[in-house]
Amino acid sequence: MLPFQSLISINKNQQSPVYQQIAGGIIQLFRNGILKPGTFIPPSRALAELLSVHRKTIVAAYEELSAQDWIESIPRKGIMVAKHLPELKPRTFKAIEETTAYKSKTSNFFQRLNTAPYIERKSANYRYVINDGFPDPRIAPVDAMFRQYRYLLKRPNADKQIMFGDNAGSPNLRNALANFLSDSRGLNIDASNILITRGAQMAIYTAARLILKPGATVLVGELSYGMANQIFEEFGAKLIKVPVDENGMDVESIEKIVKKKKPDLLYIIPHHHHPTTVTLSAARRMKLLSLIREYKLPVIEDDYDYDFHYARSPILPLASANHGGYVIYIGSFTKCFASSMRLGYLVATADFVKSGAELRKLIDIRGDVLMEETLAMMLNNGEMQKHLKKSLKLYKQRRDLFCELLEKELGDKVTFNKPGGGMSVWVKFDKRYDLKKVSEKAASLGLFMRDGSAYNNPDKNLNALRMGFASLNEKEIKGVIGILKQIL
Amino acid sequence: MLPFQSLISINKNQQSPVYQQIAGGIIQLFRNGILKPGTFIPPSRALAELLSVHRKTIVAAYEELSAQDWIESIPRKGIMVAKHLPELKPRTFKAIEETTAYKSKTSNFFQRLNTAPYIERKSANYRYVINDGFPDPRIAPVDAMFRQYRYLLKRPNADKQIMFGDNAGSPNLRNALANFLSDSRGLNIDASNILITRGAQMAIYTAARLILKPGATVLVGELSYGMANQIFEEFGAKLIKVPVDENGMDVESIEKIVKKKKPDLLYIIPHHHHPTTVTLSAARRMKLLSLIREYKLPVIEDDYDYDFHYARSPILPLASANHGGYVIYIGSFTKCFASSMRLGYLVATADFVKSGAELRKLIDIRGDVLMEETLAMMLNNGEMQKHLKKSLKLYKQRRDLFCELLEKELGDKVTFNKPGGGMSVWVKFDKRYDLKKVSEKAASLGLFMRDGSAYNNPDKNLNALRMGFASLNEKEIKGVIGILKQIL
Repeated sequence: MLPFQSLISINKNQQSPVYQQIAGGIIQLFRNGILKPGTFIPPSRALAELLSVHRKTIVAAYEELSAQDWIESIPRKGIMVAKHLPELKPRTFKAIEETTAYKSKTSNFFQRLNTAPYIERKSANYRYVINDGFPDPRIAPVDAMFRQYRYLLKRPNADKQIMFGDNAGSPNLRNALANFLSDSRGLNIDASNILITRGAQMAIYTAARLILKPGATVLVGELSYGMANQIFEEFGAKLIKVPVDENGMDVESIEKIVKKKKPDLLYIIPHHHHPTTVTLSAARRMKLLSLIREYKLPVIEDDYDYDFHYARSPILPLASANHGGYVIYIGSFTKCFASSMRLGYLVATADFVKSGAELRKLIDIRGDVLMEETLAMMLNNGEMQKHLKKSLKLYKQRRDLFCELLEKELGDKVTFNKPGGGMSVWVKFDKRYDLKKVSEKAASLGLFMRDGSAYNNPDKNLNALRMGFASLNEKEIKGVIGILKQIL
Repeated sequence: MLPFQSLISINKNQQSPVYQQIAGGIIQLFRNGILKPGTFIPPSRALAELLSVHRKTIVAAYEELSAQDWIESIPRKGIMVAKHLPELKPRTFKAIEETTAYKSKTSNFFQRLNTAPYIERKSANYRYVINDGFPDPRIAPVDAMFRQYRYLLKRPNADKQIMFGDNAGSPNLRNALANFLSDSRGLNIDASNILITRGAQMAIYTAARLILKPGATVLVGELSYGMANQIFEEFGAKLIKVPVDENGMDVESIEKIVKKKKPDLLYIIPHHHHPTTVTLSAARRMKLLSLIREYKLPVIEDDYDYDFHYARSPILPLASANHGGYVIYIGSFTKCFASSMRLGYLVATADFVKSGAELRKLIDIRGDVLMEETLAMMLNNGEMQKHLKKSLKLYKQRRDLFCELLEKELGDKVTFNKPGGGMSVWVKFDKRYDLKKVSEKAASLGLFMRDGSAYNNPDKNLNALRMGFASLNEKEIKGVIGILKQIL
C-alpha cells in the first residue's frame, strides 16, 4: 500500500474541513498518476487508521470523490479508481509533495509591456508624506455618501438598478454632470456627450485607444504627465515633445509641426500643467483653438483639477469654445473626495462616447452603479458644490501657509511660483542640494518625499519635484518644512 | 456699439455668479473674432446699463478678464482688448449664440471598435427582473464594510496609505487572499502571485493583452462567455470554437486541435460553464491538465463563482494542480457583495503578475485602496467567510424553490437541469413558446427577462436563457413564476 500518511497532508488549522483536505489530497494522487485508473484504494477503516482520523471522515471524503466521479464502489471488491480516467506517467513523490506551479519561470508565453516597470510599494512608518498633489481624505463627505449608498443598496429595486447599469455610466449621473459642467465650465452638452470612467486615467486610456494606431504621432509637452505618455506608447504611438514655459505649451512650436505634418493627437493640460502647474496664456489659447479648427487636430484636454483654483475664477477650458468636436475633455471627481475613490469622465461627441462605452465594457463592464447614483444625488442637491467650496477655502489656506513657510524658511535654497490652483507646488532645489540625497535624509527623519528623478532625462537633472500641500494640515505643514529646514 | 445685450446671456438660476457669466460671454466674443485685439469695449457703466445689472458686477467681470490677460486698462482712453491676442475672422452672430462643438458629426478621426455595439440601458418600471445571475445586494454586509472603510479614511495616515497604494493591489489584501485561496482552493501561492483588478472582466482583459497578439488563436467553448470572446477579438485574435456538452468543454476536440497547431490560449470555465452551468468532468480535467503540461498551453481558468456551490464541496480548480505556471486563474468578490462593488483578481506566476500590474497602472492606476484594505480585514477576521456561508445557505434555498416551482408550474413547457452551483439556471423553452414573444409579453406584465437572442447564431435558435434566482426572495420567485405561468 502507498504511504498515504506522507502523501496526504492534514492541517487542522485550515478553515476547510478535514474530509475535504483528504479528498483534495487523493485527487492530487490521481492527477499525478500515482493512483491509476482501475486500481483499488484502501477501505475507509484502513485509511482512517493510517491518517489517524475518524472513519466517518474518510467516508465523507470518499462520498465526495464518488460524487465528483473520481472513484466507484465495486460490490464485494472495494473502492476503485474510475476506469474512465486517463492513465498518466507517475511523477516523483517529491514533486507531489507540493504543487509549485506558480513558482515556475515560464515567461515565454506572454509579452512584456514596453512601459515603466512595476515597482512594489513598501509603506514604511513615515511621520509625514509629501505626495504629488492629493486631496485630504479626512475632509471627504463620507458620511453623506455612505448614508445615500446604503439607502440605495437596501431598496427593494437595488438589483434592478444595478442590472440596468449603463456601460457609459449611470444616466442620472450623466444628466447631473451635463448640468454641472455646463454651469461650471460653459460646456454646451447633454448626457450623450459624457462617458463615466474609473478616473481620469481610464478616460485618457479610452480616448487614446480610439484615436491612436501603431505608428501614430502625439504632441506632448516637455515635461508632461508621464502616465499619459506611457498610455500613448502602449498604443504604439511616437511622442513629439514641445517646450513648455511659464505660459504653458509653446503653441508656435505646435503650429510649425502641424503645418509640416498633422499629428494624430495633441495632449494638453491648459489649466494647471503637469508637473509645473503653469497656465496656458489667453493668446496661446486662442491661437491653439484656431489651429484645432483649421487643421482638424484631435486634442485631449486634461483638466483634472479645474475645480481647485484659488487666485480668481478658473479659466474656461478649450472644450467650451468652438472646436468642431475635436477636443476630448477629461475631468475627475477623484480630487473632490479621497484619491481612493476613483471616478472620472470624458466629454466628446455622442459618437465618440458610444465607442468609448464599448471599450469600457470590455475593460471593466461598468462602474459602481450605486456610487454613481450617489454622486448624481450630491450634484443635484448641491452637496457636492458645497463640499467643493469648503475644500477650496481650506486648500487655499494650506497653499498660502505652505508657500509662506517655504519662502521664509528655505527661500534662499529653493525657487518656486505660488500656483494659482491645484494641490501642489513645483519646487526647484538649488544645485547645492541634490534631491536624491535630500530625499534619503528626509526618509531617515520620518519624511517621505520623492527624489524628482522621474522628471529628469539623461541630459538634464532638473533637481525639482511637485510638493503636494492639500492633504497636510497646518501642524503637518509646519512639521514638513521643519524637517526640510533641518536638512538643507 | 455691438448689441451686447443679445450676445451675452445671463441666467440667474445658474450656480455660477453673474459676473463670471458675463466674463465668459465676453471671452466668447474674443474667441470668435467679434471683438478684435486693440479695439475698445464699453466702460463698465455703459455695459451695466445695456445688460441691466449693477455696475459693480461689470467691474468684477472686467477684473476677471484683466487677470486672465484678455483686456488692458489704458489710462484716459478706456478698456482695450489685449493687443497680443491673435486676430481672427469673425464668425456669424448665429454661430456664436451657441457653442455646439459637441453636436458635430466629426467621426473620422477615431476608430470604431470591432465589438458588440453599445446599447443604452433604459430602466423601466418593472416589478420583477430576471438577471443573468447576480447576488442579492440586500444581504451585502454593507454596514461592517462602511464602518471599516470610514475608520480607515479618517485615520491620520489615510493619505499615506493611499499614496503607497500598490498598482498590483493592497499588499494586505494580496496576503489575505493568498491564504484564502490556498485554504479554499488548494492554490499554493503567495502575495506575489496575485493581481487585484476591478472585477473578473478586467482580469480577463489584462491576461488577454499579455498573451495575445493580432492573428493569435483562442480556443473557446460553443457557447462561452460572450464578453470574454469580445476581449479576445479586441486584441486581434481569432476564436476557435469547441463543443460543450453536459460534461463541459470537449477535451478530445481540444486535443485534436492542439496536436495539429498549438493555439495561443484556451479560455475555460470548468466549474460552472457559462452560460449552460455544466461542470467539467473529472476525466476531462485530468486529460486537459496533461495536455496543458505536454503542450505548454496557456489557459485562462475563469472561476467567477467558485464560492457558490450547493450540492457538495466545490471541485478544485485546474490552477491547484501541476500545470507549470500556464494556468492563469481568475476569480471575483463581486458576487460576494453586490454587483455594484467590483473587485476581482488574477493568479499567475510573479512575472506575469508584474506585467499585469504595469498594464493595470496604465488603465486605471490602482483600485480603491481603502476598499481593498477593508476586504483584507474581513478575510482575516473571518467576516467574509461567515457572510459567504450565510449567502450560500440562502441562495441554495432560493435555487431549490425556483427549480421546484419551475418544474411544478412549467415542467411541460421548459427543460433545465438543477445547477450544482452558481446563481442561475439554464432554461430551454419549448419551441411552441418563442422567447422573443415571451419576453415582450412578460415586459407588459411587469417582468423584465431577456429574449435569449444573445446565445443564438444565424443557424440556430436555442430558445434558451440564463435565469438568475439568487437576487430574488421567496415572494419574488413566486411572483416571477406566476407571471411566466400566465404567459405560457
